[in-house]
Amino acid sequence: MDKGRLEAFSDGVIAVAITLLVLNVSVPMRDSLQHGQTLLDALGQRWPQYAAYVTSFLTVGIIWINHHAMISRLREADHTILIANLLLLMTIVVIPFSTNLMATYLHGGTMDQANLAAAVYGGTLLLMAFTFSLLNRQILLARAHLMHEAIPLADRRAIYRRAASGVIPYIAATALAAASAYATLIIAGVLVVFYATPIASSTQASQAPSE
Amino acid sequence: MDKGRLEAFSDGVIAVAITLLVLNVSVPMRDSLQHGQTLLDALGQRWPQYAAYVTSFLTVGIIWINHHAMISRLREADHTILIANLLLLMTIVVIPFSTNLMATYLHGGTMDQANLAAAVYGGTLLLMAFTFSLLNRQILLARAHLMHEAIPLADRRAIYRRAASGVIPYIAATALAAASAYATLIIAGVLVVFYATPIASSTQASQAPSE
Amino acid sequence: MDKGRLEAFSDGVIAVAITLLVLNVSVPMRDSLQHGQTLLDALGQRWPQYAAYVTSFLTVGIIWINHHAMISRLREADHTILIANLLLLMTIVVIPFSTNLMATYLHGGTMDQANLAAAVYGGTLLLMAFTFSLLNRQILLARAHLMHEAIPLADRRAIYRRAASGVIPYIAATALAAASAYATLIIAGVLVVFYATPIASSTQASQAPSE
Amino acid sequence: MDKGRLEAFSDGVIAVAITLLVLNVSVPMRDSLQHGQTLLDALGQRWPQYAAYVTSFLTVGIIWINHHAMISRLREADHTILIANLLLLMTIVVIPFSTNLMATYLHGGTMDQANLAAAVYGGTLLLMAFTFSLLNRQILLARAHLMHEAIPLADRRAIYRRAASGVIPYIAATALAAASAYATLIIAGVLVVFYATPIASSTQASQAPSE
Repeated sequence: MDKGRLEAFSDGVIAVAITLLVLNVSVPMRDSLQHGQTLLDALGQRWPQYAAYVTSFLTVGIIWINHHAMISRLREADHTILIANLLLLMTIVVIPFSTNLMATYLHGGTMDQANLAAAVYGGTLLLMAFTFSLLNRQILLARAHLMHEAIPLADRRAIYRRAASGVIPYIAATALAAASAYATLIIAGVLVVFYATPIASSTQASQAPSE
Repeated sequence: MDKGRLEAFSDGVIAVAITLLVLNVSVPMRDSLQHGQTLLDALGQRWPQYAAYVTSFLTVGIIWINHHAMISRLREADHTILIANLLLLMTIVVIPFSTNLMATYLHGGTMDQANLAAAVYGGTLLLMAFTFSLLNRQILLARAHLMHEAIPLADRRAIYRRAASGVIPYIAATALAAASAYATLIIAGVLVVFYATPIASSTQASQAPSE
Repeated sequence: MDKGRLEAFSDGVIAVAITLLVLNVSVPMRDSLQHGQTLLDALGQRWPQYAAYVTSFLTVGIIWINHHAMISRLREADHTILIANLLLLMTIVVIPFSTNLMATYLHGGTMDQANLAAAVYGGTLLLMAFTFSLLNRQILLARAHLMHEAIPLADRRAIYRRAASGVIPYIAATALAAASAYATLIIAGVLVVFYATPIASSTQASQAPSE
Repeated sequence: MDKGRLEAFSDGVIAVAITLLVLNVSVPMRDSLQHGQTLLDALGQRWPQYAAYVTSFLTVGIIWINHHAMISRLREADHTILIANLLLLMTIVVIPFSTNLMATYLHGGTMDQANLAAAVYGGTLLLMAFTFSLLNRQILLARAHLMHEAIPLADRRAIYRRAASGVIPYIAATALAAASAYATLIIAGVLVVFYATPIASSTQASQAPSE
């Protein structure tokens, strides 16, 4: 199977998912402004929505960059790669939901609620990194005969190992949610800044963030 | 007519429809948490939304894989194929609605409501499988002169018959909704697992699920 | 300017707009079912939503087919064509709104409300047909030097005239809304059936519905 | 990295964002029509939604045209260009939110609320123009070796300077929001008309609106 439509469909799904994130940024309803609360206050209170939007948008955006780099190694795709890709897309599409959940409870929820919401958020990022790693493994190790050019096994293993290690910070982000919801958001934010800067791109090429 | 834009438009519509499924996964509103109900309880109660999301996402995803395989047999498309494809897309786009309907009434509705909702869900999957079969018939039998390479009529009939038989399990899934809404969901889930595994892909190539 | 991205962007916008139509098909909320009203009743009452969904989906789908046919005549696009195309897309994107408006007031609104809603619906379809005709005019008459092959002026005028006459039934559909909202829906539905059948496609090729 | 998927992904994100704008055009609920208020009144009251829809749709549409012109100068993309493009897309996707905010408070809000909402709207357009300018700078000045053809530095600087000056009217639109929300909307509207007309396209080629 030609990989052209695999790319087109993946681009489409990721583009829609990343854009749906904006639906989580809510306009304060005129009626909900309480006495003495200005629109500026109401907008300010929504800062978790803006922080979550930026973090999720850039995380999914960097996954897209890496998805592109990974698929470009393929000459063609088979059924297993299509299914592995579908699992990755299924976890990416969940992110607008978990972003909304975290933003809703980070401000205005109890500490227990915020921690749980952050754990779900961290968990979906972890799941995305994990399914990305699965797809990577199929391409680099199990189905290397579908790649454009033959790469020595040792090299493929090294690329895969470095890529798979990208799962680790998301394990930390999910586990630390039990202590503080902010920890999860901060780790996810720091990872995005790290992967977006020239430093990461020069040392790791396009191996970020879940490779 | 060149088939490039047919593929691009179909990819676009299917990508948007599959991504809109996430809008059916709802964030519990802070105010709606009743006394004594934790966020964890509220999230747990929503399991039909998660099950329906996964089932519908993968079903539409596998339809996309099969759509790709089917269209790749075409050299070019004519008006009838474009219209048949449009009917298929129209049924795919309905799935976020019927998924939402089933998830809403599977938990919290009466048994009668849940059964009806599941019948509508099964019915839209059946309609999708049926319109896919119609498109298949146009390509394989009625408009074989538009295919890339000449395939003997007997072979085309065999491919079509095997493909069209994919409608049968969805008839069962819809009919069994009268007995139990869970039966519909379980059949749809089992079909997705069957078509996604290497077993199905090796014995049926890319004939799943509605071919 | 290369027309590849013009097609890709138009496909994307039309694919999203056509898929957003499903958001107008609403799931009856459990709490809103009144005493004695079954889910089946509630779903049945929503028939204007289903009729409007099918009519709008196929109308936009056929516009997409015609857009494809029209753009395929172009070798390249200039600024004016891009802007004319943008105006067409802007009217297409309004259709999910006007479809929702008509479906909301066709059942449950007063007759005056339904007539107004249908006039707005007919008016947006008319606007779409009109902007499509404008784009057609730019390509066939004002910017014929950007076409793939030279077509005699008389032929181009004939194609344009036949295409532009597609605006007429939508004028009727909009005007008749003053008498009956159903008239608008029926005309729009009949047009879609006409353009989708082989009869229309054989006599008019791909000139439907607003060409 | 090949620029094909960069274009496809950007087209997808911009197409979804521009189409989501229609979700801000609201259908008056039957129950919300007050005594004596007709549907026509209710639709008429929503004029800020229509004005904001048209202005935002065309502004994003023209950004897409300019994005196309800018990317066509590239031969290939590197990590920095991908990240700069991602930042531009992130600001474009915010526009459906800020459009909704302004439309909500332009009619029915206090003057202070309307001015603040318009300032946020102007601010997001300014941010879009600014990130577009950043991407432009990367392509024209910092990474000129990735361009298709060598253009003398003086020419590249002139193109960049003219393009970057497109930020200025959006600074004015944002600043004037403190005086009047209408001023912001009018400036944004005038800019769109200016960039869409043949005059702008002939004198500035495709340098509008934020180049």
